[in-house]
Amino acid sequence: MDGDIQRLQADLRHFAEERDWGQFHTPKNLAASLSIEAAEVLECFQWLTDAQSYQLSDEKRQEVGHEIADVLLYLLQLADKLAIDPLAAAREKLAINAAKYPIDRAKGTSKKYTEF
Amino acid sequence: MDGDIQRLQADLRHFAEERDWGQFHTPKNLAASLSIEAAEVLECFQWLTDAQSYQLSDEKRQEVGHEIADVLLYLLQLADKLAIDPLAAAREKLAINAAKYPIDRAKGTSKKYTEF
Amino acid sequence: MDGDIQRLQADLRHFAEERDWGQFHTPKNLAASLSIEAAEVLECFQWLTDAQSYQLSDEKRQEVGHEIADVLLYLLQLADKLAIDPLAAAREKLAINAAKYPIDRAKGTSKKYTEF
Amino acid sequence: MDGDIQRLQADLRHFAEERDWGQFHTPKNLAASLSIEAAEVLECFQWLTDAQSYQLSDEKRQEVGHEIADVLLYLLQLADKLAIDPLAAAREKLAINAAKYPIDRAKGTSKKYTEF
Repeated sequence: MDGDIQRLQADLRHFAEERDWGQFHTPKNLAASLSIEAAEVLECFQWLTDAQSYQLSDEKRQEVGHEIADVLLYLLQLADKLAIDPLAAAREKLAINAAKYPIDRAKGTSKKYTEF
Repeated sequence: MDGDIQRLQADLRHFAEERDWGQFHTPKNLAASLSIEAAEVLECFQWLTDAQSYQLSDEKRQEVGHEIADVLLYLLQLADKLAIDPLAAAREKLAINAAKYPIDRAKGTSKKYTEF
Repeated sequence: MDGDIQRLQADLRHFAEERDWGQFHTPKNLAASLSIEAAEVLECFQWLTDAQSYQLSDEKRQEVGHEIADVLLYLLQLADKLAIDPLAAAREKLAINAAKYPIDRAKGTSKKYTEF
Repeated sequence: MDGDIQRLQADLRHFAEERDWGQFHTPKNLAASLSIEAAEVLECFQWLTDAQSYQLSDEKRQEVGHEIADVLLYLLQLADKLAIDPLAAAREKLAINAAKYPIDRAKGTSKKYTEF
């Protein structure tokens, strides 16, 4: 259980209720919105090399921060609608990945990764 | 500051280090991965109606949970690489949205939404 | 072979060469751009119901047209770089789908669709 | 007007009709599907370097070809539903881009690109 995340989810619920936006926030629409916002994160890096992606200007870094925030806000709303605990799900998935990619076999290769 | 999230980020750092995957985890690649996984969340809802998207079977709900987890895991890794505090960024963005969509003007309309 | 598509691909090649943009147009970057632009198509429909998505205003329809164009332009450039004939690939995939979804079993159900 | 593309669109219409899939193929669902399939193209390149993305194995190149085909098939169906001529739209967008990125100012820089 995560206090900060639950508080943020409650605030998002309140935010949508005050604006009567629940009608738009179907799980399907929230999933589409998640995908749209994730693409906006990617857009920040669209023409950068991998090396450049480590050296963002302050302005660009703030822009990425806002886009990451948008993704997180939709993620928390979608999880809330479906009664999924996002941190517990992440912990569970990390354990699955640890079993799927044993250190000795996965070390230094992105091969197995394609099954992610 | 969020203890649980920071612990998860530390575990993800450790996970990648053990497998020598840091070389693949450039901010740009993590942003692409975020987008790919967000599309997999959307895929769970691809042919459902809005009404059906509220009534997932247990199996489907678990599948969505795993995909949401993948998005969150990449989001946390990307934020970690860029030294962005994801919860602080989300709080800041929520405040920006509250100012951008005043209750009296935004109520019951998705019009302004297009500027999100 | 499709004359119109090949001419458009040649024009896109010329367009990029004149601007010395070949350095940015790696297959990987073009694939990311394809995904970013596809999300912009989706964004046009983000808060519409399925019924509303059939009844776009002229302005919205033109906006969707531009976004569809962006997707197609990147698709053609990516296919060109990889020497893939997009129409031949589409024809081949349609034949695969016809075998995968026999009419009598696929009729009126989106179930099998999840394997697309 | 493009004969090959129009024939393919007619065949796709027939394919969907035979399976009674028109009910699922709302413009909104087709836009979501376009985005999902574009992410699958990107997934083929997820952990490759830019250099590696030029040197795909035959197997990988065929995989990319199938994913490109999926994107094109949804693009053509979406355009068909909205009575948008995809090639004409692409031609129009290319002309807009030529005006937006004059050769002398755009040469060798991806800066302006961010406004794409």
